[in-house]
Amino acid sequence: MTEPFSFRLIKTDGAARRGEFVTAHGRVQTPAFMPVGTQGTVKGLMPDDVRTTGAEIVLGNTYHLMLRPGAERIAALGGLHKFMSWPLPILTDSGGFQVMSLSDLRKLDERGVTFRSHLDGAMVALSPERAIEIQALLGADISMQLDECLRLPASAEDIARAMELSLRWAERSKRSFESHAREGHALFAIVQGGDDLALRTKSARELTNMDFQGYAIGGLAVGEPQEVMLKVVAETAPILPAERPRYLMGVGTPHDLIEAVKRGIDMFDCVLPTRNGRHGMAFTRFGAINLANARHAADPRPLDEQSPHPAARTYSRAYLHHLTKANEILGQVLLSTINLAYYQELMAGMREAIAGRKFSEFQAAAVAQWDRGDLPALSS
Amino acid sequence: MTEPFSFRLIKTDGAARRGEFVTAHGRVQTPAFMPVGTQGTVKGLMPDDVRTTGAEIVLGNTYHLMLRPGAERIAALGGLHKFMSWPLPILTDSGGFQVMSLSDLRKLDERGVTFRSHLDGAMVALSPERAIEIQALLGADISMQLDECLRLPASAEDIARAMELSLRWAERSKRSFESHAREGHALFAIVQGGDDLALRTKSARELTNMDFQGYAIGGLAVGEPQEVMLKVVAETAPILPAERPRYLMGVGTPHDLIEAVKRGIDMFDCVLPTRNGRHGMAFTRFGAINLANARHAADPRPLDEQSPHPAARTYSRAYLHHLTKANEILGQVLLSTINLAYYQELMAGMREAIAGRKFSEFQAAAVAQWDRGDLPALSS
Repeated sequence: MTEPFSFRLIKTDGAARRGEFVTAHGRVQTPAFMPVGTQGTVKGLMPDDVRTTGAEIVLGNTYHLMLRPGAERIAALGGLHKFMSWPLPILTDSGGFQVMSLSDLRKLDERGVTFRSHLDGAMVALSPERAIEIQALLGADISMQLDECLRLPASAEDIARAMELSLRWAERSKRSFESHAREGHALFAIVQGGDDLALRTKSARELTNMDFQGYAIGGLAVGEPQEVMLKVVAETAPILPAERPRYLMGVGTPHDLIEAVKRGIDMFDCVLPTRNGRHGMAFTRFGAINLANARHAADPRPLDEQSPHPAARTYSRAYLHHLTKANEILGQVLLSTINLAYYQELMAGMREAIAGRKFSEFQAAAVAQWDRGDLPALSS
Repeated sequence: MTEPFSFRLIKTDGAARRGEFVTAHGRVQTPAFMPVGTQGTVKGLMPDDVRTTGAEIVLGNTYHLMLRPGAERIAALGGLHKFMSWPLPILTDSGGFQVMSLSDLRKLDERGVTFRSHLDGAMVALSPERAIEIQALLGADISMQLDECLRLPASAEDIARAMELSLRWAERSKRSFESHAREGHALFAIVQGGDDLALRTKSARELTNMDFQGYAIGGLAVGEPQEVMLKVVAETAPILPAERPRYLMGVGTPHDLIEAVKRGIDMFDCVLPTRNGRHGMAFTRFGAINLANARHAADPRPLDEQSPHPAARTYSRAYLHHLTKANEILGQVLLSTINLAYYQELMAGMREAIAGRKFSEFQAAAVAQWDRGDLPALSS
C-alpha cells in the first residue's frame, strides 16, 4: 500500500528548514531543487543522468504537456512517469504561468482562462477543475492549483483582483482534487499578492485555513528586484504552517536559493541551470562561468576538480569552450548536466549545514567563494 | 611498451572476413563500424554512451579539427583522446574529403590543396605532409593519406588524374609518416579511381607495392548507384593484401554494410546513424522507422524490445515521436544512441556469422526482417 503524502521537519536553523517529504514515488530531502522537465524531458538529459546529478524530483509543465502530446494521451500510455521513464516523484505546475507567458489571445474570467495554443493556434480552455484533471491524468505526485499569475510591476488593483480570484480557484481546485483523490498524491496552494505584503498575508492566511498539503509562493521572479522577492518570502513564509512544505516557484540563481532557504523555503524549480547550460554558461562553486569566452580556449583544467559529479571533473574548459563555439549538442548536454549537479551539490550543502546548525557559516563560505570568482586564467 | 599496430585475420566465410586489429589504445574486432566524431564529439553522446553502444573505435575529422580548435591546440591539451575523453582507438581522416565537400575556393596542385575555411574565410593549405603532421598532433591511432576525392560522375580524364595524384601523395604521406613514426600507430593508403575498374586496379596494385598497414577504398558513396559501389568493392578488395585491414570510407546504410562485408571489407564509418537520428529516423532490425510519423503517436511499444541496448528497449515509440515533434534535444540523443547501437549489433551479428561460416544465412535473415518491415501499427 502506498503511503499517504507527508512532510516531516527534521531540523531548523533560524528560519532555514531541513525536512523530508514522502510521495507515492519516493522520498525527497528538503531543501530540494527540482529540474524542469518542460515537455516530458529535462532538456538533453537521459533520466538516469538526471538522477546522477542528485535530483530526487522533477517538475513537469501542464501547459506544454496538455497541448502536446495531450494529457489523455499520456494517461493512456501509463502516465508521465512511465512516458518519460522517470521513476521518482514529479510535481506538475497548473499551467497558469505558461498561459501568461507563452500564449496570446487570453480571455480570463471567473470560470477560468481561454487561450490560443502557441503550437497550432487552437483555442484551449483551462479551469481550476480541468487543471486538476490534467494533473491527475499525468499522474503527478504533487499537483498545483490553477492561479492567475501577473507580471510585475502591476497595479494594486490588478494584484488584489488576481489574488482574490486565485483564492477562489484554490477552493475549487481543492474540491476537484478531493474527487480525484489518489493515495500518496498532494495538492499545493499558491500564495499570490504581488509585491503587496498585506495581500500576500491575506492570501497565505486564507489558504492556510483551507488546509493544503503544501504551499507555494507564486508570482515572483517575474521581473521584480531580488530584494522585493526576498522581502515577500521573508514576510510570507512565517505565516504558512510550519508542518507543511513551502515551495518558491520559478526561482532561481544559486544566490536566490540560499537567501530563500534562509527565509524558510523548502522547494524550488528553475530553468536557469539547463537554459543557461544550453547557452554556454556554467554554474560552479566559483560563480557563473561563460565557456564561450576565449580565455578558456587553451585551459586544460576541468570546471571544478573537486566536484562530486564526474562531468565537472572530467572535461577540460578548453573542450567545453570548443563544444560551445562549435554549437555541438554535447556542449549543451554536458553544461546542463554540470549545472544541475552544481545546484544539487548546493542543496545538499544547505541540507547538511542546516542539520548541523551551520547555515550562516555555509552561506558565508559559499558567497565568499563566488566573490573570489573563477580560477585565475592560465597564461597561454 | 606499446604493441606495434597489427592485424590478424581470424576466419573467412567466402570473401567475408572476421579479424582483429591492435592499436596503441586497444583492440578492435572486425568487421567494425566507426561512429563519426566530426568536431571532437560523436554528436550528442557522452563518450561512455558511445562505448555502451558497442563502439571500439571512433573517427575524427582532420578538416574540422585543424580549423577549430586547431591541431596544435589539441596537441598542447594532450591529444584528441584526452581532449574528447575517449580512451579507445581513433582513426582520423586526412581532410581531403571535407575540403571537397565543405570549402569553396579550392586550388589544387601537385603540392597540395589550398582552400577557404568555411568557418572564417581564412585561406588554409593542406599538403600530404601537413595532413600527416596534423594527424600526429591529434594522436590518431590510424592516420589516412591525403588524397584527391572527386564527386561522381566525373570524366575519365579527371578520375585518372586524381588517382595518379593520390598515388604520388600516398608516397609522400608514407615518407612523412615514417618521420613521425609512433609505436602502435598506423597509416592507411586510399585506393582511388572512381568507377573505372582498370584505374582502381592500378591504384590498388601500386599502393600494395608501397606496403601500407591498411588500405581504404575512397571516392565511393559520393553519388553513384549502390551497384556501382559494390562492383568497385568486389573488384578492388581481392587485389589488396589479405593480411591488411580494408576500410570502405563513408559507407553506409545497413544494407551497404552487409553487402560490403560480403565482398571483403573490414571497416566502415558513416554519419547516417547519428545524422538520421537527429532527424527523427531510427535504424532497427525492422528497417528504418520515421518517428515523426503520426502512426507512432499512441504506440506504447519500444523500437525493439529484443535489442541488446536499453534505449531501444525502454522508451516508447510514442515518447520518441513526441520528442521528435517537439524538437527536443533528448530525441536526437536517444535516436543517435539507438541507431549506433543497432549498427554495432549488426556488426556483431556479422562477426559471429563469419566465425560460424553462416554469413549467407545471417544476411538472408537480416534482409528478410527488413523486408517484412516494421511491427504493424497499433490501432488507436
